Amino acid sequence: MSTQTRVTAGLLVIGDEILSGRTKDVNIGAVADFCTDLGIDLTEVRVVSDVEESIVEGVNALRQRYTYVFTTGGIGPTHDDITADAIAKAFGVALPINAQARAMLEARWKETGTEVNEARLRMARIPEGADLIVNSVSAAPGFRIGNVHVMAGVPVIMRAMLEALTPTLKGSKKVQSLTVKAAVGEGTLGGPLAALQNEYPDVKMGSYPQMGKDRVMTELVLRSSDEALLAEAGEKVRAMVAAAHAKAGIAPPDGE
Amino acid sequence: MSTQTRVTAGLLVIGDEILSGRTKDVNIGAVADFCTDLGIDLTEVRVVSDVEESIVEGVNALRQRYTYVFTTGGIGPTHDDITADAIAKAFGVALPINAQARAMLEARWKETGTEVNEARLRMARIPEGADLIVNSVSAAPGFRIGNVHVMAGVPVIMRAMLEALTPTLKGSKKVQSLTVKAAVGEGTLGGPLAALQNEYPDVKMGSYPQMGKDRVMTELVLRSSDEALLAEAGEKVRAMVAAAHAKAGIAPPDGE
Repeated sequence: MSTQTRVTAGLLVIGDEILSGRTKDVNIGAVADFCTDLGIDLTEVRVVSDVEESIVEGVNALRQRYTYVFTTGGIGPTHDDITADAIAKAFGVALPINAQARAMLEARWKETGTEVNEARLRMARIPEGADLIVNSVSAAPGFRIGNVHVMAGVPVIMRAMLEALTPTLKGSKKVQSLTVKAAVGEGTLGGPLAALQNEYPDVKMGSYPQMGKDRVMTELVLRSSDEALLAEAGEKVRAMVAAAHAKAGIAPPDGE
Repeated sequence: MSTQTRVTAGLLVIGDEILSGRTKDVNIGAVADFCTDLGIDLTEVRVVSDVEESIVEGVNALRQRYTYVFTTGGIGPTHDDITADAIAKAFGVALPINAQARAMLEARWKETGTEVNEARLRMARIPEGADLIVNSVSAAPGFRIGNVHVMAGVPVIMRAMLEALTPTLKGSKKVQSLTVKAAVGEGTLGGPLAALQNEYPDVKMGSYPQMGKDRVMTELVLRSSDEALLAEAGEKVRAMVAAAHAKAGIAPPDGE
């Protein structure tokens, strides 16, 4: 046994749709894989319904026991999305509209001509003292407060948020990640990306389409504990994306 | 709102392999669907590792809160299968070899020439005062003690055990089930069974192969809240199986 302190995690899956069977959860497996990759022991999972006291009780039980807590679900625009309310209550803090979250949302809405209304602005309510977790897919951010990481329930958005958390989490394995932005869709990138994933099995490659953008955008996130291998695979992915851009006759996206 | 008392359930999923991501759970969704069909509100799920105190704590928390508790996993022959030990501890009862469970196992082992050894006999250890839950697939039984139903983790076995529980559970919907035994395999029955499932969407049809039998056997379980429809679908399934037997030139199995 190592003398290293064990890094542990608890996961709270929030949503009536999982408990009724209408939606089959895939986030438990994705969080489990992610934790294993980072050398974090996922020690307990709870699934609770969209009831404030159940969420408060679950998150308070888990955050006192484990190094990290992750939650999935209940941060959308509808009346039964009460995770932010419950987390604010669990921590005893207010839940104001967060200026940075509002700006992120409004920037995406402006691109798509989406109306700003009260329901949508619910997604900008963030507990006081929390940091935002960037959502590359649909803009509405998650947040971190204390050791609790609040994420979306939609699997692709949840995974994109997990990838965004990589640099902030310290497991027993040192893992690094890099992001490559593409201005073409997953249909174009899927084939060559799968070939590169086969070539580099020790580099995890994920693909995250940006929803609600006026221009197709895909973020490719690569993650590995082998820094040299990550850099090498990153170069190949960049070259693959550049070739796809050239073939489509489009300029690369900002920041690349 | 109805004045009827809500019938609730908690599910405890037991197994390191789920928390590490090596195995992706599908039992939560299957139990959720089953509960919804019977009008039982699955209210909470917990996933815990193969650690006795975690299982004891989980089952004690859930059994005090909910009408029914289901557990999956940890009842096999290996050293880390400690669910029976933990449940006996949670209820403060002994864990002797159960004569009926031993007889079920030995009957199946005799058919296949499987050696009786200490590891395999672990599966006959049943908490004192528990009733057995029949396992049509691989013989090793689950058990019910108080309101707690202890089932296997292998999905097809877990689902067969759930079906076996149907007559003993009282949800808000009255559901009945019937079983048709076949002496041919799932490969033969799959096509015509799918066609009948399409014809009777309100009758759930499941197929459970009997493992470790010297002769191929499949149990088909039909479940519905519509008694007349269930009987009608049952007749068609029986006719389909009889035709498959005739085509294969084999006698129907005992009891049919």
